[in-house]
Amino acid sequence: LASEIRTVYWEDGKVLLIDQTRIPEEFSIIAMTDYRDVAEAIREMKVRGAPAIGVTAALGIALGAQRIETCDSDEFCRAIKGIADEFAGTRPTAVNLFWAIDRMLGLIHPETDSVEVMRQKLLDEALRILEEDIEINKRLGSFGVDLIKDGDTVLTHCNAGALATAGFGTALGVIRAAAAAGKRVQVIADETRPRLQGMRLTAWELSMSGIPVTLITDSMAAWAMSKGMVNLVIVGADRIAANGDTANKVGTYGVAVLAKAHNIPFYVAAPFSTIDFSIPDGSHIPIEERDASEVTHIGGRRIAPEDVHVLNPAFDVTPSKFITAFITECGIIEPVEIGKMRDKG
Amino acid sequence: LASEIRTVYWEDGKVLLIDQTRIPEEFSIIAMTDYRDVAEAIREMKVRGAPAIGVTAALGIALGAQRIETCDSDEFCRAIKGIADEFAGTRPTAVNLFWAIDRMLGLIHPETDSVEVMRQKLLDEALRILEEDIEINKRLGSFGVDLIKDGDTVLTHCNAGALATAGFGTALGVIRAAAAAGKRVQVIADETRPRLQGMRLTAWELSMSGIPVTLITDSMAAWAMSKGMVNLVIVGADRIAANGDTANKVGTYGVAVLAKAHNIPFYVAAPFSTIDFSIPDGSHIPIEERDASEVTHIGGRRIAPEDVHVLNPAFDVTPSKFITAFITECGIIEPVEIGKMRDKG
Repeated sequence: LASEIRTVYWEDGKVLLIDQTRIPEEFSIIAMTDYRDVAEAIREMKVRGAPAIGVTAALGIALGAQRIETCDSDEFCRAIKGIADEFAGTRPTAVNLFWAIDRMLGLIHPETDSVEVMRQKLLDEALRILEEDIEINKRLGSFGVDLIKDGDTVLTHCNAGALATAGFGTALGVIRAAAAAGKRVQVIADETRPRLQGMRLTAWELSMSGIPVTLITDSMAAWAMSKGMVNLVIVGADRIAANGDTANKVGTYGVAVLAKAHNIPFYVAAPFSTIDFSIPDGSHIPIEERDASEVTHIGGRRIAPEDVHVLNPAFDVTPSKFITAFITECGIIEPVEIGKMRDKG
Repeated sequence: LASEIRTVYWEDGKVLLIDQTRIPEEFSIIAMTDYRDVAEAIREMKVRGAPAIGVTAALGIALGAQRIETCDSDEFCRAIKGIADEFAGTRPTAVNLFWAIDRMLGLIHPETDSVEVMRQKLLDEALRILEEDIEINKRLGSFGVDLIKDGDTVLTHCNAGALATAGFGTALGVIRAAAAAGKRVQVIADETRPRLQGMRLTAWELSMSGIPVTLITDSMAAWAMSKGMVNLVIVGADRIAANGDTANKVGTYGVAVLAKAHNIPFYVAAPFSTIDFSIPDGSHIPIEERDASEVTHIGGRRIAPEDVHVLNPAFDVTPSKFITAFITECGIIEPVEIGKMRDKG
């Protein structure tokens, strides 16, 4: 069952993950013993999705910790910080990455703990982050389920599913929860160029779970909305600013504008750790620009003319005014409430 | 020079056309002696774009007329109508196809003309339609040029260029005219999934003409607009209803909604023959649904999971309220004026 997909996990001293660049053609698990391979897997998007990136980085740091050959606590601490820096340099937008790294580094107390104790604490914490992520998604899904009516069609962009998290999913977790509650729910999946996560991952994951899914190109979302085919939109998030502005896969902002123009509710499903209270609004979110070949080549083959100039921002920012509400593990939160939650602590 | 691209033409008793499914990988000309091959080329989108489809059908009918082996005028007339029916069945949305067919059939007078006379009239008329198309585009461009300011960036969707017409282009014709007038103009080209006409044809055609072009995925148009990168949008049209509602390549409607949300003018460049006065509004425009494989396969390779449900409307309809004005060979026309022009005749 796809609801039991284990996107990334720990086994016999290794980090294992599904190579998402191979789906749906092939379902292959990569086992890694070197933390550098884990960092590379994040960079190459073999694992992607903000929560999954956070979990993978935590496991990667725990993996690196196993191989640091020293008994000196201070030396171990310096080495761990070096490893953490490598993970921090993989991808700039998803804040869950930095949140997970900070959580791991917060455990390091070389003044009191031995290397062995720190190694064990890092592994325990990484596994806790992983388990918590699945629990958070299920809780988030249980809050979101009321937003979906029997017979509804949900449009989603990119993949905020089990594959974007340690399991269950955020946006697709809400849909799973609705299906589990006996509601007839179906999904329209934007294919999500350039990397086609909607076509390759969301369509695959939902089909595996027996949830009806219809694939469209990104350019057909407006048409589908105008035809009354879409009851609500649910997407994930890579970083939410303190005012509710939300970075997510490029194309999300356009979907939000279109949803508003068609009076269709637009929800963002994300764990609380996606909120970055340190930045006032979306203009401060760093947006990753990825290689032009993601646009010019499809399936390994060049389609575009040689030497054409290309833009390839991996994310865009949806201003909070386009967001009906956030679906989190703490409940349904309206954009204006995000800032208040920071003030409450 | 791409402004001298001959998309489709007549030579030595054959219809020749650029195989647009091979661009940019290969520039190949197909020579056809059987009108059925011409019809098939339209169906398979070896030639596409509403004006080009009309011209090609006219040449195809003229080609078919050369091979009808009869001296009986009535028999010839019946055969021509059969050929015309085959062309009418190729693609349903572009009205220029039916306009060109009607113009060809209007010449057939078996009661007065010999077979030889009719054959010659058909060829003369097809060549006239071709020449007129290029002239119309140049006239249309000369009216549109004032809408582009020095330094402007124009966003376009699909390909309404030389390749979509007999030559010069409609939307891209306006851009060519601006460049020829010495204005610095650059283009952002939506890649235009599923068939990637923006990536394959528009980027290629503009590069060939030395007009700076930047390629984006369709999902990045909203982001580009929000960043202030787009001064105006110009697209082509496949059919314009009497109230100004406009069918064009799927995704156009979304671009129009986004343009309005960002206060960016949205222009439709099309010859007058694209207006279908017989239908009151866009809901009456037949929308072609094409094969799912156009979405699931890219570059001949399947990317989507097996058996996934797919929607693939080739066009969508942009309500006239989203259209700033039409750029035609008769001048710049606001949507409300379209209906009045019919009344005037």
